[in-house]
Amino acid sequence: MKNLTHIDEQGRAKMVDVSEKPSTAREAVAMAKILMKPETLQLIIENRIAKGEVLQVARIAGIMASKKTSELIPLCHPLSITKVDVDFNILPQENAIEIQARVKTIGQTGVEMEALTAVTVSALTVYDMCKAVDREMTITEVMLLEKRGGKSGEFVRKR
Amino acid sequence: MKNLTHIDEQGRAKMVDVSEKPSTAREAVAMAKILMKPETLQLIIENRIAKGEVLQVARIAGIMASKKTSELIPLCHPLSITKVDVDFNILPQENAIEIQARVKTIGQTGVEMEALTAVTVSALTVYDMCKAVDREMTITEVMLLEKRGGKSGEFVRKR
Amino acid sequence: MKNLTHIDEQGRAKMVDVSEKPSTAREAVAMAKILMKPETLQLIIENRIAKGEVLQVARIAGIMASKKTSELIPLCHPLSITKVDVDFNILPQENAIEIQARVKTIGQTGVEMEALTAVTVSALTVYDMCKAVDREMTITEVMLLEKRGGKSGEFVRKR
Amino acid sequence: MKNLTHIDEQGRAKMVDVSEKPSTAREAVAMAKILMKPETLQLIIENRIAKGEVLQVARIAGIMASKKTSELIPLCHPLSITKVDVDFNILPQENAIEIQARVKTIGQTGVEMEALTAVTVSALTVYDMCKAVDREMTITEVMLLEKRGGKSGEFVRKR
Amino acid sequence: MKNLTHIDEQGRAKMVDVSEKPSTAREAVAMAKILMKPETLQLIIENRIAKGEVLQVARIAGIMASKKTSELIPLCHPLSITKVDVDFNILPQENAIEIQARVKTIGQTGVEMEALTAVTVSALTVYDMCKAVDREMTITEVMLLEKRGGKSGEFVRKR
Amino acid sequence: MKNLTHIDEQGRAKMVDVSEKPSTAREAVAMAKILMKPETLQLIIENRIAKGEVLQVARIAGIMASKKTSELIPLCHPLSITKVDVDFNILPQENAIEIQARVKTIGQTGVEMEALTAVTVSALTVYDMCKAVDREMTITEVMLLEKRGGKSGEFVRKR
Repeated sequence: MKNLTHIDEQGRAKMVDVSEKPSTAREAVAMAKILMKPETLQLIIENRIAKGEVLQVARIAGIMASKKTSELIPLCHPLSITKVDVDFNILPQENAIEIQARVKTIGQTGVEMEALTAVTVSALTVYDMCKAVDREMTITEVMLLEKRGGKSGEFVRKR
Repeated sequence: MKNLTHIDEQGRAKMVDVSEKPSTAREAVAMAKILMKPETLQLIIENRIAKGEVLQVARIAGIMASKKTSELIPLCHPLSITKVDVDFNILPQENAIEIQARVKTIGQTGVEMEALTAVTVSALTVYDMCKAVDREMTITEVMLLEKRGGKSGEFVRKR
Repeated sequence: MKNLTHIDEQGRAKMVDVSEKPSTAREAVAMAKILMKPETLQLIIENRIAKGEVLQVARIAGIMASKKTSELIPLCHPLSITKVDVDFNILPQENAIEIQARVKTIGQTGVEMEALTAVTVSALTVYDMCKAVDREMTITEVMLLEKRGGKSGEFVRKR
Repeated sequence: MKNLTHIDEQGRAKMVDVSEKPSTAREAVAMAKILMKPETLQLIIENRIAKGEVLQVARIAGIMASKKTSELIPLCHPLSITKVDVDFNILPQENAIEIQARVKTIGQTGVEMEALTAVTVSALTVYDMCKAVDREMTITEVMLLEKRGGKSGEFVRKR
Repeated sequence: MKNLTHIDEQGRAKMVDVSEKPSTAREAVAMAKILMKPETLQLIIENRIAKGEVLQVARIAGIMASKKTSELIPLCHPLSITKVDVDFNILPQENAIEIQARVKTIGQTGVEMEALTAVTVSALTVYDMCKAVDREMTITEVMLLEKRGGKSGEFVRKR
Repeated sequence: MKNLTHIDEQGRAKMVDVSEKPSTAREAVAMAKILMKPETLQLIIENRIAKGEVLQVARIAGIMASKKTSELIPLCHPLSITKVDVDFNILPQENAIEIQARVKTIGQTGVEMEALTAVTVSALTVYDMCKAVDREMTITEVMLLEKRGGKSGEFVRKR
């Protein structure tokens, strides 16, 4: 059975040593979904038709947060992101918005955490902007969808 | 129908003006759940019995992130947290860990976002530390459970 | 002749001691102008009519930067902003965009630096987003327009 | 007509993908000017002769800010600066101080924004340290002077 | 015997709850000493006589770091500093520089950590600026000298 | 006699230009010691036997701080750490804890400051968590122990 890579033999937290890993092109895609009341979704959609502010603020928040990932996640390596995209898909039948982030780098470690941080902070921003009208919004299905590059090869999550 | 408080009449994003609000005691409780494979949960538990590192790192990450909330969420007011607690509840039957954060302040705005940020970054940290053994962990049920203080009064979410 | 408040008698930099100052309502308004080629302004306007992204990203950048003021300006006191507004006025005859920021707090020091930081970073963001089409954009007229609250009373700059 | 590189076809803000760009030596020079009352300039000069604090604090502020550029400018790529210089030129006839910053990196994107951020925050720091004696200082002529490296080749602004 | 205030009954790290504590004037003084070769001290002194850069950069670094204390120390409460002073005392007979920081706030918790962070980062900055000529500099005697305000009353360390 | 590398010929602070330096594997080891009352050490040990929280929080704090080094030390180059380890050695006879940090990177500059920042912030965190029971803890012997890689070759401090 594999061991936790961030815990050493004495059970102490450690940052994985990536010094010997080659610097290669890496990419990750993550998603989150935020569930809300139909009226809340309607307010966001109407604003989007006009100017799209809620989702645009959430997009910027997600992009900026992905650049802060190694400040937030204690054992995460700092790396230089070469690309972040945050996109929204409105799901009227589920009264939900799906958020996807795609992050790229040329580096020694993957960018899963950067993609997951982007979708999560983006979803929290939607919550913040709408919380006065809907406190019961729920963030769900936060997960890694795709990962490419590095020794472990390609990963695509079946949905 | 209520309007989005963070969008003005022209549809522009704005920070709500809290200058006139009194400074009062406020509290919020939020949760997140992280689902994983039974083997992953087992690895975390065994480490916890020994030294508890995974959850302890995740706790520190959540506490520190809650202090960064206004840096992450664009229209969130900075405030001085007086207390943050992050706790874990292992749910073996669901192959999940539930994370709860309780945040307090004396201030002009609530601390929902601080509590939600704490649980979310705590969950992302669990993901980061275990991702080498389980890429398909999923964060779910991120939501506000309780809120006290301020004009809007007490809120307790039914579960 | 008045002395520089941030330099002590030995010529050393110091943070002004505001411990004894009462906590009062304070407000500041600052502006910046960004000059560009007519074609650049046209591109921004067209995008604004559609979705307004350039100016919306610049607005968010300005709001978030104002919260970081005390991290950027070495001798600036940290304070809790209660309100930030960033607004744009397109000046087609000058091929320019004027940016204004209004910041409020309840605190022991003024928020001039927060307002000036907001307009400056907002203008830099416009530059960043348009620099591929116009490297010669120039930021100018960065100044304090209004200041209220605190011992020094009201200040309104004549324009 | 060229399009805005930070806006995609749907008008959404995006970070430019630099993954495929080679890592090359890059350099940028930017300037800002800060206008003030003759007495204010005199105070700064006298302090400079003694110990130079105002401009030295402003220099440090500019250098440190350039390292924070990608935190401030939403769609800016993080990169590792290899050199930052901030310099001052006192212009007694204009009652002004000119600030220049030169920034270098080995990377996939240019350092214009880092140089512009350095001069801007440096100028704001001068404002902060002198604002008690001169609220009407104005920052002006913030612009890129030179840029080298990368696909677009050399740029030198005519003054 | 007293217990560790940052560890709860189950041995978990926690942030102390200061919600009920009154907001009062608080002050702390801390020191650090940095030992070096006589030649290194000489270089710093000569530069100080001319322009004082090493110690001035170290002073700014200490002041700015004290504002970041709650970002660095995991269980430290954020608070709004009202004053920070960093000062240097050259001790030629010990080939050392003594650094003292005095920090004030009006708040619910003390500012010991802010004063200790200021002297420590100030000392590290001296190290950084001189390390090319003296790798064996040693930082020592980092300690709290004075503390005032709050329930625990006055503390003055005997030296 | 060698000159201070961070001060130019006019005595101005500057960031060393590392643009021309090759990117190589680099490593540094630093230490700090924290002296305390025997009872305080006992409290930490007992908690460590149970769960080790004090030292574990201090370890995480040290790791996270090393990633922030270039934000704290004004003239320090940002670089991408590939590994940080923070370890503790309890010295009962000295009533002290020794902290060691080992940092690695592949880059153009060394990681001494990252290792020194890690041990220092780790020691400050121990102070913070135990200060309610022992205000007179002292941090001492903060120094570089080893350095490898780069033009200056290997350095090992004799102890």
